[in-house]
Amino acid sequence: MASEVNQVLVVGSIAFDDLLMPSGDFPDVLGGAATYSSIAASLLCPVRLVGVVGTDFPEKHVEMLKHRGVDCAGVERAKGKTFRWKGRYSEDLASRESLDTQLNVFADFRPKIPAVFEKSPFVLLGNIHPALQLEVLAQVQKPLLSIADTMNFWISGEPALLAKVLEKIDLLVINDEEARQLTGKSTVARAAHDIRKRGPKRVIIKRGEHGAILFDDAGAFFVPGFPLEEVHDPTGAGDAFAGGLMGSLARQGTVAEKSVRRAMFYASAVASFCVEGIGTTRLQTVTKPELASRIEMFAKMLDYGGTLALGDG
Amino acid sequence: MASEVNQVLVVGSIAFDDLLMPSGDFPDVLGGAATYSSIAASLLCPVRLVGVVGTDFPEKHVEMLKHRGVDCAGVERAKGKTFRWKGRYSEDLASRESLDTQLNVFADFRPKIPAVFEKSPFVLLGNIHPALQLEVLAQVQKPLLSIADTMNFWISGEPALLAKVLEKIDLLVINDEEARQLTGKSTVARAAHDIRKRGPKRVIIKRGEHGAILFDDAGAFFVPGFPLEEVHDPTGAGDAFAGGLMGSLARQGTVAEKSVRRAMFYASAVASFCVEGIGTTRLQTVTKPELASRIEMFAKMLDYGGTLALGDG
Repeated sequence: MASEVNQVLVVGSIAFDDLLMPSGDFPDVLGGAATYSSIAASLLCPVRLVGVVGTDFPEKHVEMLKHRGVDCAGVERAKGKTFRWKGRYSEDLASRESLDTQLNVFADFRPKIPAVFEKSPFVLLGNIHPALQLEVLAQVQKPLLSIADTMNFWISGEPALLAKVLEKIDLLVINDEEARQLTGKSTVARAAHDIRKRGPKRVIIKRGEHGAILFDDAGAFFVPGFPLEEVHDPTGAGDAFAGGLMGSLARQGTVAEKSVRRAMFYASAVASFCVEGIGTTRLQTVTKPELASRIEMFAKMLDYGGTLALGDG
Repeated sequence: MASEVNQVLVVGSIAFDDLLMPSGDFPDVLGGAATYSSIAASLLCPVRLVGVVGTDFPEKHVEMLKHRGVDCAGVERAKGKTFRWKGRYSEDLASRESLDTQLNVFADFRPKIPAVFEKSPFVLLGNIHPALQLEVLAQVQKPLLSIADTMNFWISGEPALLAKVLEKIDLLVINDEEARQLTGKSTVARAAHDIRKRGPKRVIIKRGEHGAILFDDAGAFFVPGFPLEEVHDPTGAGDAFAGGLMGSLARQGTVAEKSVRRAMFYASAVASFCVEGIGTTRLQTVTKPELASRIEMFAKMLDYGGTLALGDG
């Protein structure tokens, strides 16, 4: 049995995506926030997954996850079809349009945390209904670190429940636009300060290809996005980011400020691999040496020689 | 007489802007790319300015520049009115609409470099017609570093002349959207590589509040934008960035890779002060201790503890 110390529990959606990309149409792509986060985190640590799939969900996907060290004891198979999303991306991949959303078995999803998962030091709440995020937190022992993602739909639709989630979690991961929407503040610095007053000690503002900023007691901390030559599919990049972050923290086994800062690079690196392929294809093939090499490149891309002073008055 | 070693020559527009901001209307604001760049660079080194103003240009602005160490021997006073631009910013300051552009005396501007400016080690060509940028380069001795800015208008309107400029300069500063437009490449990494093949050994891609990326022989290098609590006016931020970059390099007196990387932080810091006030107002009041303090904050915001490895396989 793997050590309890470095387990990441991931709760969220498992889905099929029909992706209409500038490069072609990709139907029945394995997707869902929890899937992306689990595959990302499993590059670095053992993972426990809680979600729901339908009777149409091929066993080969479950096998792939298990093979990566993802414990699927919490993946419920319900009668009906798996959650399905269809979207079309713009030519430059900068925006996308939802064409169809079929919640299917996900509509009645009530996360049930298996007893063997209750003691998980790292808990990642994917972007699901805040009521469900609260149900998960009620079912687990207080973790070393709980993080949650959210979106515009819950910000406008369930503000009271979302406020309760914020009171209970340690870290909110949110994109810049949604951080502004949630707080009504025009700059990310103000939005982050406002969110931190509502509960989470830490906030990470995701900025897509531009990277992310962490705000905590030590101040602001930046990680850039990796300057890729080619991007194929931005789907799931934010979820891969959160998974990489948690995977790195679980591997380090601490949530000290420096550890979180270091984890930000793993998060950004893993997200950069994610967008190099359609769906989770690239994420599934990333090797530890590839990840280490990209992390080294990040260090080089930030190396200014150790001093910024110009040497005279 | 100041040393020739650390002089920055700035050539470009001097203007009046009528700014319609969410916070109010600001008529007759001192503006123009060369103005912003000169004021920014003068925080760090002596500056030589070449541009044209009309008979309506108040002497107090010239006096302000001189007082900052900007040599205005190259500022021609022509019969007619000063270049004037009127624009309205969106509520979130993320976009702007040009309402009126009156070139006035700028329409016939032909930069004449005073003999005492011919030997300038650092030459900054603001965003003017590429034919004029070439005329400037023909009038000066080969500098230690020549940099140029450009824009969509010249990219689509004067591609052949712009190509000649690229062959002659050492560094192109350009925003991400325009880099994509210039090269037809979808990622900034590809666009930067493509631009470097056309001439300049170095390219800096500006990304507004997200900072900038330098591409040179050493690879990619990132500098974030400073996470400001309040932004008042983004006008001239890119020009202040270029001015801060050149000012820092002139002060260092070298163009070594590490020096350029260090200068990127000064560029971003100066640009961050720029947007804190309407027009050049904040830029004019920045003190050396304030600049040093912001540079120190940058160092803290990037400090990940010196190692990114997680310590085990």
